[in-house]
Amino acid sequence: MGIVVQKYGGSSVADATSVKRVAQRIVATRKAGHDVVVVVSAMGDTTDELIDLANEVSPLPTARELDMLLTAGERISMAVLAMAIGNLGQEARSFTGSQAGVITDAEHGRAKIIDVTPGRIQKALEEGAIAIVAGFQGVSQTTKDITTLGRGGSDTTAVALATALGADVCEIYSDVDGIFTADPRIVSDARQIPRISYEETLEMAANGAKILHLRCVEYARRNDMPIHVRSSFSDKPGTWVVKAEDANTFNSSTGSGDASDSEERPMEQAIISGVAHDRSEAKVTVVGVPDKVGYAGSILRALGDAQINIDMIVQNVSAATTALTDISFTLPHTDGQRAMTALARLKDEVGFERLQYNDSVGKVSIVGAGMRSAPGITATFFEALADAGVNIEMISTSEIRISVVVAENQVDAAVNAAHAAFELGTDEVEAVVYGGTGR
Amino acid sequence: MGIVVQKYGGSSVADATSVKRVAQRIVATRKAGHDVVVVVSAMGDTTDELIDLANEVSPLPTARELDMLLTAGERISMAVLAMAIGNLGQEARSFTGSQAGVITDAEHGRAKIIDVTPGRIQKALEEGAIAIVAGFQGVSQTTKDITTLGRGGSDTTAVALATALGADVCEIYSDVDGIFTADPRIVSDARQIPRISYEETLEMAANGAKILHLRCVEYARRNDMPIHVRSSFSDKPGTWVVKAEDANTFNSSTGSGDASDSEERPMEQAIISGVAHDRSEAKVTVVGVPDKVGYAGSILRALGDAQINIDMIVQNVSAATTALTDISFTLPHTDGQRAMTALARLKDEVGFERLQYNDSVGKVSIVGAGMRSAPGITATFFEALADAGVNIEMISTSEIRISVVVAENQVDAAVNAAHAAFELGTDEVEAVVYGGTGR
Repeated sequence: MGIVVQKYGGSSVADATSVKRVAQRIVATRKAGHDVVVVVSAMGDTTDELIDLANEVSPLPTARELDMLLTAGERISMAVLAMAIGNLGQEARSFTGSQAGVITDAEHGRAKIIDVTPGRIQKALEEGAIAIVAGFQGVSQTTKDITTLGRGGSDTTAVALATALGADVCEIYSDVDGIFTADPRIVSDARQIPRISYEETLEMAANGAKILHLRCVEYARRNDMPIHVRSSFSDKPGTWVVKAEDANTFNSSTGSGDASDSEERPMEQAIISGVAHDRSEAKVTVVGVPDKVGYAGSILRALGDAQINIDMIVQNVSAATTALTDISFTLPHTDGQRAMTALARLKDEVGFERLQYNDSVGKVSIVGAGMRSAPGITATFFEALADAGVNIEMISTSEIRISVVVAENQVDAAVNAAHAAFELGTDEVEAVVYGGTGR
Repeated sequence: MGIVVQKYGGSSVADATSVKRVAQRIVATRKAGHDVVVVVSAMGDTTDELIDLANEVSPLPTARELDMLLTAGERISMAVLAMAIGNLGQEARSFTGSQAGVITDAEHGRAKIIDVTPGRIQKALEEGAIAIVAGFQGVSQTTKDITTLGRGGSDTTAVALATALGADVCEIYSDVDGIFTADPRIVSDARQIPRISYEETLEMAANGAKILHLRCVEYARRNDMPIHVRSSFSDKPGTWVVKAEDANTFNSSTGSGDASDSEERPMEQAIISGVAHDRSEAKVTVVGVPDKVGYAGSILRALGDAQINIDMIVQNVSAATTALTDISFTLPHTDGQRAMTALARLKDEVGFERLQYNDSVGKVSIVGAGMRSAPGITATFFEALADAGVNIEMISTSEIRISVVVAENQVDAAVNAAHAAFELGTDEVEAVVYGGTGR
């Protein structure tokens, strides 16, 4: 039997009781014959509490020291988890990111993994121990300082370790059963997706589904590492994230207990895999931009220089009589103020008329590899929105996704309309368990 | 100006406010022209809280994982302290024990320092930064695992680093002003000692004075590193712990601000430096041991095999008519049950009559290098005790110390009697600040 990497998030190890429950699951996997490597996040709200402490002594703590501080969180959870496993009679050894060989660049707070050299983990496995690894952290190749990968980085740690160890699967545990066709809090008949491709998962994650971190999926896609997204509160199979050609036919060969009895995806692949939504963005419109070469570039350069990540960009067709155009884009709420400031400085240079800011918007996206070969998808989507009385403010598409920006108070209606139009629901309504915000 | 190592205990960095206060003190030392290395303990009760957490998941956590867990405490305090210093405009970089080059053996929970290779600390100092180092922790030379030095180990870290860096002084900060002639909570006119030798400090520490850890003083003595024991709550000079020949004439050459104006010790050295007391021990008597060669050895071997540290040992002169003797010894309360169990197993082999256990005892010691050349010290001590109505149960002596075991409810009377007999008090009663249990 091969190596299984399991990652448990903060809500799965929130207190001593949760830690003991997780320990039992880990020991069960070990007893099923697998070599087990566990990546763990900080317990519950530890990270937030440490950030609060930092802010008490300094309004702008240095990134190096903030990383040193935050990594204490995983140090606690991994040691406690190792003890809980030891108490069940199985040897477990905890390792910091540095000890586990997670080598990064020196960008504190958002370090990128350069290399993984898991010699000590392999030795622990060879000696029969379960290895517990601190998620979210590494050590800089150049400065030897402790780094963190940024929020949600533990998922990336897990996939990176799974890849370096040649694991059969990377299991990502949270308090959610898997990836759903839509948020079950909005769509009552939302269905858990048994298998989905990396590409679709990336589009889902990038467009508001909060289950997996983008970087983690990207890392898995590049290295073809299957991810099994599942709940630490149940033994039900979750969602397998695999390469596109396996998304229909993939069958687990890891023998990880319950994977073999997960249902096959229907032979005829669904056109649309799911509906994602995102309320975290705002829309900015630069009104009355002279429709000349280079002006759009100036605007985007100004936003880039201000370190603002913009998402969708739309430039209206200019009316020939005025030679003026409008440029709209979306960006995270949190960057709104900075973007408006940066753009206001450009007013004289570019000569636009005015700026509009609207944070009462939401983005609704349909994602599916099937839409590549299925004509009429956009029409079906837009007709469904129209029938539900939803007005479309912006449109953006990729090869496997169509996104629209709508008024925030129409997001729920739009998600339900799209979910129904593409027949994503279950036949009978199941009691789905979903708790992205903790339970 | 040279290097100053400062060590701050948990009570000095109990919360954000304390951390900011300590940061100001550190920055002031830096601005006075010193290179500053700070060793810090975990904040307030963090270590106890982490131990509680460990016990929640496992009644007997493995030593390796307990060390991993506990070292999170200093990781938090050192990063927060570095941030607080940064907020005052001075660069500070925190380092774990491992990063600071504190190399130990692999004895988790009570590791011994083998070597200190502070290359990264020296580099930080050369680059103008203040170095903050996690106390209490190191890394095993053989296993590369994280180790801890045991309770109070941060003092030892500080002295070891001071030695390796060739520092001018190791300042140990706590909530106490220094070393006193007796516990001011018991003796109202107890006086702060300006200078004291390593040897006297060792005897004081070994016999109940709780200010410095034995290992730390021993390390300083071996390497002739002056220790300045002082309060982080005031700028008053504290107690200098130095080699015996300097205890009279020593004058700080570190220029550490207030050291130069500390009063000289009187030219004629006091015979007795201080009175220490200890209520943490119990007395065990093995009654009716056959007075034959080897029986005392068997008893001590049994205790040694049970890993029990005994302190005083007294064997009564045997009465020739019975050929039986009594052996009494003292040991920590906490080892009492194990000692009694180990001894009970010997009953048939050795053939003693019975065991007596008494934990209502206390030890009172007078310590002073001067007693080497002053006759009559023992007589003065014992007469004072007799005058105070204190009964002596056991006696033990070293070259610079006389200890007696008395009933626990007579400890205060005995300490006061000894303190007065050797005229250790101040002329006028000062408002001394003392707070060994926190304030």
